[in-house]
Amino acid sequence: MVSINENYNALKESYLFTDIAKKVAAYSQENPDKIIIKMGIGDVTQPLIPEVVEAMKKAAAEMGEKSTFRGYGPEQGYAFLREKIVQYYQENMAVSLEPDEVFISDGAKSDIGNITDLFSQKNVIAVPDPVYPVYVDSNVMLGRKIVYINATVENNFLPTPDALQEGDIIYLCSPNNPTGAAFTKEQLEAWVNFAKKNGSLILYDAAYEAFIREDIPRSVFEIEGAKECAVEFCSYSKTAGFTGTRCGYTVVPKKLIFGGASLNKMWLRRQTTKFNGVSYVTQRGAEAIYLPSAQNNIRKTIDIYRKNAEVIAQTMEKKGIWYTGGKNSPYIWFKCPDGKTSWEYFDFLLRTCGIVCTPGSGFGKNGEGFIRLTAFNTYENTVEAMRRLEQI
Amino acid sequence: MVSINENYNALKESYLFTDIAKKVAAYSQENPDKIIIKMGIGDVTQPLIPEVVEAMKKAAAEMGEKSTFRGYGPEQGYAFLREKIVQYYQENMAVSLEPDEVFISDGAKSDIGNITDLFSQKNVIAVPDPVYPVYVDSNVMLGRKIVYINATVENNFLPTPDALQEGDIIYLCSPNNPTGAAFTKEQLEAWVNFAKKNGSLILYDAAYEAFIREDIPRSVFEIEGAKECAVEFCSYSKTAGFTGTRCGYTVVPKKLIFGGASLNKMWLRRQTTKFNGVSYVTQRGAEAIYLPSAQNNIRKTIDIYRKNAEVIAQTMEKKGIWYTGGKNSPYIWFKCPDGKTSWEYFDFLLRTCGIVCTPGSGFGKNGEGFIRLTAFNTYENTVEAMRRLEQI
Repeated sequence: MVSINENYNALKESYLFTDIAKKVAAYSQENPDKIIIKMGIGDVTQPLIPEVVEAMKKAAAEMGEKSTFRGYGPEQGYAFLREKIVQYYQENMAVSLEPDEVFISDGAKSDIGNITDLFSQKNVIAVPDPVYPVYVDSNVMLGRKIVYINATVENNFLPTPDALQEGDIIYLCSPNNPTGAAFTKEQLEAWVNFAKKNGSLILYDAAYEAFIREDIPRSVFEIEGAKECAVEFCSYSKTAGFTGTRCGYTVVPKKLIFGGASLNKMWLRRQTTKFNGVSYVTQRGAEAIYLPSAQNNIRKTIDIYRKNAEVIAQTMEKKGIWYTGGKNSPYIWFKCPDGKTSWEYFDFLLRTCGIVCTPGSGFGKNGEGFIRLTAFNTYENTVEAMRRLEQI
Repeated sequence: MVSINENYNALKESYLFTDIAKKVAAYSQENPDKIIIKMGIGDVTQPLIPEVVEAMKKAAAEMGEKSTFRGYGPEQGYAFLREKIVQYYQENMAVSLEPDEVFISDGAKSDIGNITDLFSQKNVIAVPDPVYPVYVDSNVMLGRKIVYINATVENNFLPTPDALQEGDIIYLCSPNNPTGAAFTKEQLEAWVNFAKKNGSLILYDAAYEAFIREDIPRSVFEIEGAKECAVEFCSYSKTAGFTGTRCGYTVVPKKLIFGGASLNKMWLRRQTTKFNGVSYVTQRGAEAIYLPSAQNNIRKTIDIYRKNAEVIAQTMEKKGIWYTGGKNSPYIWFKCPDGKTSWEYFDFLLRTCGIVCTPGSGFGKNGEGFIRLTAFNTYENTVEAMRRLEQI
């Protein structure tokens, strides 16, 4: 008799985006003339850059010719792409990696979820609150004990390990989703030191590193000793508009040894058993991101979003609303004025300004009373939305 | 302190293909003039058909234009592809599915590995021997109890459930990898009846269904009642040469209810949490497989492999060697002559004929004394290899 994984019963059904969609639909129906501006969803809107499109078309054509056809590729990803990533780390972060410390994936979300396979049930999982729901749900599915690291206005939504009593596996995300806040070098050092002292592992989500413009770490491996206590997840989704193209990578240093086991070897074994690598066409597309002209083009795309974030931040400043994010991130996280709850302010923003936001309470208890706005809409819409907001 | 998943220590290191490669390299070095014909690896060699290449190029171009760009797609896959699959089942197998019973994946291997997430530790796992190693390894990683279903010459490598004492989750693969044997309707009915009687779940790997030409089931859902006890994994890898392009699909019927839980809902929850869907470009490529001209073209490609399989089978007949497979499969599984072990015959074939095969012992204890040959080489090479084999 099949017995199911009962931990699934403990998962909270997430109605966040469903509820938003329902409210927006209802408002639209009541107010057919109002133009709604969506600043809620964290998906990109700018197209792929020409270098990526051309590389994918060329790779597709290669797959149609017997002499250039490719079958199964390496599960870990093609060397041509892993070597580019190693070079990128060296040139941009002064971090030295070996190509076999890099694993190409179909996106950070898959690897963040699947890496839980490598650890026993005994581990206590520490996740920030508010948080990207995948960290929590993928551990609830395994029935693991979860403790929360409070991120609040008091610590600028950048918590330190001081208050953490336990935590064998610690999720950090910087620049953060949903808050947009990004760790300084000193803050990250505190986390690395904590992990090394306690024999903990940091699962570091760097999906938004390309948005960093200030002088703060873009990789956890910029911190001394991090290779002994951290795995880093990266993605081309927000960097190069790959949300629908699906490619990212995970860095698992060879120095990561726990209980005598090499996490690098375990992850390789996991991936060769339960994964077959990313499409050749996609990997050629990702490789093209590293062309000098492409680096220039993706920076231009990111600058579009960054300019939007600035527009939003300026409005917050003008209105004297407490906010974080926006500088090194496409997200602005602000405190609802007048003590409103997240959903109250959501309704207010929709009804008075026709703006769709994301209620912060959807990301955890500390998100209550906050709102996430994203910079992924067009410049024109962002300006118009902020004009409306400033008028109230 | 991080504690790792100790079950990984119980995994057998697989040196099968590494050992083969070493032996082939050594032989090559000693005999630089000999032309070696590789008939060991289960990877396709024919290029993608033009319809698929064109669809992928077109989709890549769409991704480069703002008006047609696509961000995050549905985790379950685009409706345009799921609807084609539903239609394919209806027209080819007279099986009625609903589009939300179909989940697009990046390949059968991922889903076969990941579906283990849905079940508790208590289940006893039944796998055939010989077997595709992923079934075993993905359960060893979870520390689950595994029992083996003996496939032997006596049952033509198509075991019945008669000898099975326990088994909550049963892996079946038909046409089989490595043996090429394919279940008849009666045999599959016996498995479905067993599963229904015992409350077991069949995980049915149909990756090679497109090779079936005889009047036997191409889907487990052709069997009455299978929707209440089976999940089916399919792949475009061997059907349409997608081994390097990465796309497949999994059918999880809504009638699958265990312990009050819907496996369809659980799998959707697992995929939305730990997966972000398959590349839009890839899904458009997969959709193109269903064009009438494309169906004709993939059949032509499969016929190339099938003709090779026939050539191999004819040699087996001529030499009076016991074999199975080849008819509905790209694999021929034969008994080593003269009571040789798999590796002895491997060495013999390499040294006397310059043919590389796969030793059957690499797939389980019942594989000892057998050899797998694949039909994925060119027609010319296959004919030449069999000419050499017939001469000894």
